[in-house]
Amino acid sequence: MKLWQKATGSKKEVEQFTIGRDPEFDLILAPFDVLGSMAHAHMLTKIGLLTAEDNKILQQGLKEIYHEIEQGKFSIAPGVEDVHSQVEFLLTERYGEVGKKLHSGRSRNDQVLVDLKLFYRSAIRDIAEEAQILFDLLIELSEKHKNDLMPGYTHTQLAMPSSFGLWFGSFAEGLAEDMGLLKSAFDLSNKNPLGSAAGYGSSFPLDRTLTTELLGFSDLHHNVINAQNSRGKTERTLAFALAGISGTLNKLATDVCLFMNQHFAFISFPDDLTTGSSIMPHKKNPDVFELIRAKTNQIQAVPTAVSLLLTNMSTGYHRDMQLLKEEIFPAIEKLKSCLSMSTFMLQSIKVRQNILLDSFYKHLFSVEAVNELVLSGVPFRDAYKQVGMEIEADNFAPNQNSLSHTHEGSIGNLCLVEIQGKMKKANAEFDFQKIDAAYQKLIK
Amino acid sequence: MKLWQKATGSKKEVEQFTIGRDPEFDLILAPFDVLGSMAHAHMLTKIGLLTAEDNKILQQGLKEIYHEIEQGKFSIAPGVEDVHSQVEFLLTERYGEVGKKLHSGRSRNDQVLVDLKLFYRSAIRDIAEEAQILFDLLIELSEKHKNDLMPGYTHTQLAMPSSFGLWFGSFAEGLAEDMGLLKSAFDLSNKNPLGSAAGYGSSFPLDRTLTTELLGFSDLHHNVINAQNSRGKTERTLAFALAGISGTLNKLATDVCLFMNQHFAFISFPDDLTTGSSIMPHKKNPDVFELIRAKTNQIQAVPTAVSLLLTNMSTGYHRDMQLLKEEIFPAIEKLKSCLSMSTFMLQSIKVRQNILLDSFYKHLFSVEAVNELVLSGVPFRDAYKQVGMEIEADNFAPNQNSLSHTHEGSIGNLCLVEIQGKMKKANAEFDFQKIDAAYQKLIK
Amino acid sequence: MKLWQKATGSKKEVEQFTIGRDPEFDLILAPFDVLGSMAHAHMLTKIGLLTAEDNKILQQGLKEIYHEIEQGKFSIAPGVEDVHSQVEFLLTERYGEVGKKLHSGRSRNDQVLVDLKLFYRSAIRDIAEEAQILFDLLIELSEKHKNDLMPGYTHTQLAMPSSFGLWFGSFAEGLAEDMGLLKSAFDLSNKNPLGSAAGYGSSFPLDRTLTTELLGFSDLHHNVINAQNSRGKTERTLAFALAGISGTLNKLATDVCLFMNQHFAFISFPDDLTTGSSIMPHKKNPDVFELIRAKTNQIQAVPTAVSLLLTNMSTGYHRDMQLLKEEIFPAIEKLKSCLSMSTFMLQSIKVRQNILLDSFYKHLFSVEAVNELVLSGVPFRDAYKQVGMEIEADNFAPNQNSLSHTHEGSIGNLCLVEIQGKMKKANAEFDFQKIDAAYQKLIK
Amino acid sequence: MKLWQKATGSKKEVEQFTIGRDPEFDLILAPFDVLGSMAHAHMLTKIGLLTAEDNKILQQGLKEIYHEIEQGKFSIAPGVEDVHSQVEFLLTERYGEVGKKLHSGRSRNDQVLVDLKLFYRSAIRDIAEEAQILFDLLIELSEKHKNDLMPGYTHTQLAMPSSFGLWFGSFAEGLAEDMGLLKSAFDLSNKNPLGSAAGYGSSFPLDRTLTTELLGFSDLHHNVINAQNSRGKTERTLAFALAGISGTLNKLATDVCLFMNQHFAFISFPDDLTTGSSIMPHKKNPDVFELIRAKTNQIQAVPTAVSLLLTNMSTGYHRDMQLLKEEIFPAIEKLKSCLSMSTFMLQSIKVRQNILLDSFYKHLFSVEAVNELVLSGVPFRDAYKQVGMEIEADNFAPNQNSLSHTHEGSIGNLCLVEIQGKMKKANAEFDFQKIDAAYQKLIK
Repeated sequence: MKLWQKATGSKKEVEQFTIGRDPEFDLILAPFDVLGSMAHAHMLTKIGLLTAEDNKILQQGLKEIYHEIEQGKFSIAPGVEDVHSQVEFLLTERYGEVGKKLHSGRSRNDQVLVDLKLFYRSAIRDIAEEAQILFDLLIELSEKHKNDLMPGYTHTQLAMPSSFGLWFGSFAEGLAEDMGLLKSAFDLSNKNPLGSAAGYGSSFPLDRTLTTELLGFSDLHHNVINAQNSRGKTERTLAFALAGISGTLNKLATDVCLFMNQHFAFISFPDDLTTGSSIMPHKKNPDVFELIRAKTNQIQAVPTAVSLLLTNMSTGYHRDMQLLKEEIFPAIEKLKSCLSMSTFMLQSIKVRQNILLDSFYKHLFSVEAVNELVLSGVPFRDAYKQVGMEIEADNFAPNQNSLSHTHEGSIGNLCLVEIQGKMKKANAEFDFQKIDAAYQKLIK
Repeated sequence: MKLWQKATGSKKEVEQFTIGRDPEFDLILAPFDVLGSMAHAHMLTKIGLLTAEDNKILQQGLKEIYHEIEQGKFSIAPGVEDVHSQVEFLLTERYGEVGKKLHSGRSRNDQVLVDLKLFYRSAIRDIAEEAQILFDLLIELSEKHKNDLMPGYTHTQLAMPSSFGLWFGSFAEGLAEDMGLLKSAFDLSNKNPLGSAAGYGSSFPLDRTLTTELLGFSDLHHNVINAQNSRGKTERTLAFALAGISGTLNKLATDVCLFMNQHFAFISFPDDLTTGSSIMPHKKNPDVFELIRAKTNQIQAVPTAVSLLLTNMSTGYHRDMQLLKEEIFPAIEKLKSCLSMSTFMLQSIKVRQNILLDSFYKHLFSVEAVNELVLSGVPFRDAYKQVGMEIEADNFAPNQNSLSHTHEGSIGNLCLVEIQGKMKKANAEFDFQKIDAAYQKLIK
Repeated sequence: MKLWQKATGSKKEVEQFTIGRDPEFDLILAPFDVLGSMAHAHMLTKIGLLTAEDNKILQQGLKEIYHEIEQGKFSIAPGVEDVHSQVEFLLTERYGEVGKKLHSGRSRNDQVLVDLKLFYRSAIRDIAEEAQILFDLLIELSEKHKNDLMPGYTHTQLAMPSSFGLWFGSFAEGLAEDMGLLKSAFDLSNKNPLGSAAGYGSSFPLDRTLTTELLGFSDLHHNVINAQNSRGKTERTLAFALAGISGTLNKLATDVCLFMNQHFAFISFPDDLTTGSSIMPHKKNPDVFELIRAKTNQIQAVPTAVSLLLTNMSTGYHRDMQLLKEEIFPAIEKLKSCLSMSTFMLQSIKVRQNILLDSFYKHLFSVEAVNELVLSGVPFRDAYKQVGMEIEADNFAPNQNSLSHTHEGSIGNLCLVEIQGKMKKANAEFDFQKIDAAYQKLIK
Repeated sequence: MKLWQKATGSKKEVEQFTIGRDPEFDLILAPFDVLGSMAHAHMLTKIGLLTAEDNKILQQGLKEIYHEIEQGKFSIAPGVEDVHSQVEFLLTERYGEVGKKLHSGRSRNDQVLVDLKLFYRSAIRDIAEEAQILFDLLIELSEKHKNDLMPGYTHTQLAMPSSFGLWFGSFAEGLAEDMGLLKSAFDLSNKNPLGSAAGYGSSFPLDRTLTTELLGFSDLHHNVINAQNSRGKTERTLAFALAGISGTLNKLATDVCLFMNQHFAFISFPDDLTTGSSIMPHKKNPDVFELIRAKTNQIQAVPTAVSLLLTNMSTGYHRDMQLLKEEIFPAIEKLKSCLSMSTFMLQSIKVRQNILLDSFYKHLFSVEAVNELVLSGVPFRDAYKQVGMEIEADNFAPNQNSLSHTHEGSIGNLCLVEIQGKMKKANAEFDFQKIDAAYQKLIK
């Protein structure tokens, strides 16, 4: 029997279809919903829609709920629609009618929007912190392995000498540069939408600057339609930022899987971090890095999903936007775990020594040899000819032990301090302290 | 007869397959290639790989070519592989062997990379300028139509009163906020890759800080592998930025097509800017906005194409990266034309007056009516009940003529000055002047 | 404290990272895993790797587990790795060493592959059935509303007369035509991969034709590398099929949301199937169709996610492929619910009568009027001129009540029987009966 | 000075913006446009809207134009809007008023649609033919190299013995299986949209069955709205088919680039088909395969672009659909060239002999060794233990010279005949002959 043939139960199916994964996501939003309500109540009080007494009770009640959430004691009761209703329900149950006064001057639309913005700010902070930890490790590994040479490839072909110092360092700087997109996402998340109501504002004389300050926002979406349209734009920009960092991790994971292949055998991990077989001792499956590669691909698909949800849609809220959470929330968790797993694994990475001493790699040094001759005064053309003839006659025997690359960012001059400075500067652009201070004040 | 059965001609097919659209794109890169070479020659001189005399000749020769490009007199001769070879060929033809000395200490990889970075900086500037022009018009239209009310929709359903002032203003602020992503792309484009050679640096003592300064870069990609890996990352970030602005234009175009529909009939354009039919006088096809909608969708697909080209690829240059140009270059042109076409069309937009006076829209004012009662002292519950009963009894007769929304960003307080400030601040973050100054110095 | 600083617990985090959502998905695969094992055991018996007695016991044990799964009594015990291990564990626990013999001649790779193929066949059948139910309703609605005229739009502009019969019927035929892609996905799912082992075959003399027959497959992936590479290709093709049907539902949902807008007001649904507000009686939010529109967009993003997981990857299994399940399994469920919800809602759709009688629509009939004159013998040019002049003079008064469109597929000749024939033919291409018969024989 | 400041020239810019690349695409559609008009004229004659005499002249005129197109003598005159107008213009110029009568009973919409369907059918045929040629070569290579063993990888780790016969054969069968999606696209392209007019049919008594037969269509889109909605659906399905084949080629190209890497060095190509350097004799850059890898990624992005153009759009033609051509037409050309380049290159592939004789690979044979013992009567557990101990004691010395894999699709039993049968069967489903016969009749 098919759904539409059921006399009863239909509404239930509709409910399940429309609610989707919101109960799960609402718990994530709960603390932010309470913070938003605290700011809103203060503001309503200032403009005279709540009395000072009302506000005192509401702040007290909201603080209680906030701490219950922190302690894992908060849940959405069966039959209660969502987190917003649950908070209102608890306030009313505990403190009476005053609980219902909180909803004046806002709509579900701007309430959800502010919850999301606060959550995204927090998630971005988590990501920035995980990225910093991985970054620090990469810098450490780069320094540690600065003298361990390895081949560099172009077109997947052996090309030039490289080093593990250079290789680790490249991902460190890559991560530092990824912070730019994350900052773009932070900036959009750090704008106050509260007061936009259903997207067309309110006839109450709301003080949006006050809630902006109370919640530690750096600015507000002034135009209320634009505030509503930032639903979607914020997620798209965050999706881009997640995809950007994912691109960097994907390349790291791809390299690791390749370099663990037995033909390369440049790096290895302890047995308990790879999957093997007693009968196939040659196998060390890099499952964790394969999954980092795969998960960062999933994240790189999120911009498409977000764009499809948003495109060709007219101004104003559409229920479609609810599903943005299904795309973004898991992607945030996924990226955080990819970052922490990369850190976890790379702590134990073992690098093979003296790779380039093997004569297999001698031709890698041909350009070096030419350059050395040039630096010693031989004209380029003659130097090139000389080395070419040695190679052809098969008596090219370069020094495969050392390299004297000295310019900025080269094997012999990794510029790790400068790269650390780049990361520091990137992180300084996030004003997490301002947010902390604001929250401290609200929940003190 | 199939390709592989042809004895001759095969190499030609391979060539065509591998060259693709590069001849077309190389002409776009030509002026930037010359600028990069000027900086490179100065640097080689400083580190002693060129004599002052060599450099004087080369700077002279490069300046000539630069001006030929400006005057449209430059082309890539038949049989010459690419723009880089053409420049070298011209120098050598005109000034002899010195032309060949220019290639020391760099490889095609970092040469192309620097060309691309310089071009992207320039393209981003064009886009920022087109966005500014559209922004100014939107602000102007917002101010002009601040008193023209229109309905606001949620769920594509009539919801609340809105205004054309609010609607135009929302896209202005949207554009201002899109500049954040564009700045991220600019930052990546504004880092010097020169000196990374084939991605593993050089044994010459290159002075990368010097070329960074000479080309007006704000910083360098220190790590040379990271510099090479920025090929792709830069394009991805730029694709995100183009897609971000496209999202805003797509919504504008979607709204326009909807509001031109005869059931809405909120806006119109002069006959010569729409497509009609003498026998179907009801039709005013919004072709231009349909195409803006469509083209901004094409641009929003570019991140997918770029991600597919890059993902699961190991460190180092791959020929695949050549095709990034095929994705990004046309997308840049497309976005520029969408911005300028939006401006062109909106100049002539006509807005219908007094839309909300029609009783068809009276229920839009129900929330306003409740709020007014509340502000006049009636408790919310009573106010809500009273209005609800009026509506039910069908004697709800609100004032549909005016609204007193006063808070920041609302119908009565559009905050256009603040939004202009936001755009100004966003634009100030691009240091185009520094680039101008650097180029001026190179080509003086 | 960060993950990598924890002395203990690390392995647990790795496990969680690598297992992902597999426990959830494994339960879905359980019955198919048992069916695959039944066929495998019969085959091993035939080639002499199991005795008839062994096989008798194994078949008995597998049948028991199959019924436990059917009755919801099956679960994966804590500490047991996956569904395959759980089945082996149960067999061994209950029947001793014979349980371990089942794993000869196959690897996890082809075992999982065959589970997936069997599941996909089953999921495709569910989708085909849901599509058929919706199709039948659309045909019914098309017949019922064949005389209810409505406007037809091009460029979102009023263009020509249309009808609800035509509109409903278009989605019916659209669905019928979507079955082609579903058949492609079915064909790939309906090929036996068993015997490909880890992707390079086995030195045992496996009888792959026997398992092909026992499991009701229509064919086998002959080449064992190709069998392994079908992991991914099958999912990609299925993703395309899901996206194809989603495209049709997306358009249906978009139309519904537009036609429920108050300016159109062509259709409506009972109050309990839309979301309204006592104070905003004008609102009937089409949440269910907004979510169908959104969910079908999510499904249309799945091909991108699948392509990113697969592209630029060399031959052979990679752990990345595990995550294909995370993309495909929920998409299958999502499409099924979108189909059944569409059916559920459309059952209650109300269509406004006599829409086109309003003089607002009279210009829609201008082409009809010209054609009528032509058919009555007036030369086209004269007819066109005559109608054009009437329109200009504003005395064009067409009969807005009826239309005599008679050609195949037009308003007056909907060809519902032919369209039903198309769906029937499409469905006949799936040989579900063959599969039923095979399973019947296995679990008899 | 900006566009919108120009007094003159504006219309020109709008024109350029709206026309886009249509002039280029229209030339591709020209022959199909003429064939569609021939069928339409016959039909109009049958239903009495044209006289037999009119039709005779029109058929004559159209035949002339068809031959001019074939001979490359056709072009769209300056100032003429598109190919349809050009054909009408030529007819009228040469034969007078009768040329204008051709447009009765159809609109630009169904005329363009039918042109596109005919072109897609033709393009699909080209692709099927190119695929067949590559397939034949792969079968030939598989047979030729059936005894050349190579390693098989899982997790990019050495896993089991494989062979070049198996590897080449896997892509042959893969291509054969890709034909299913191509058939889906063919089926949608092979349905007649003519008679749907602007998407809502016509009041003329069109005989759509007649044009279906005359153009060799297998069926018609009955419902006229559905016919119009097939614009987009056809392109989406074709995009899926192109992406499917691209997935197979992408894997082939990825493998080739990896196997050409010097650590593998399994395959090579003649020097003139790779890019090298006199001073870096180790480099053989696989540019052509890198570009095949990249171009097949570009094609795999096309479904996203098509979906974004189509999604969330209401029923009926939108100008957006014009841009589908920009996505699909180049993708068709790209895939054709990737197929022919793969064929061209693989003709010259050289396979390294005796790879697995190296003791480096001995552990690959551990599973084989266990299986051999089992087949000779040793219980599995004992066999496993024995081989495990040999490996641990480092005296495992398998025969690395031969393998006796015998089951279907394994190294020793490649089933090339069956795979050829699969391709033959797939190709038989396209009824190209019917189309040839129909065209023959029209242009005889």
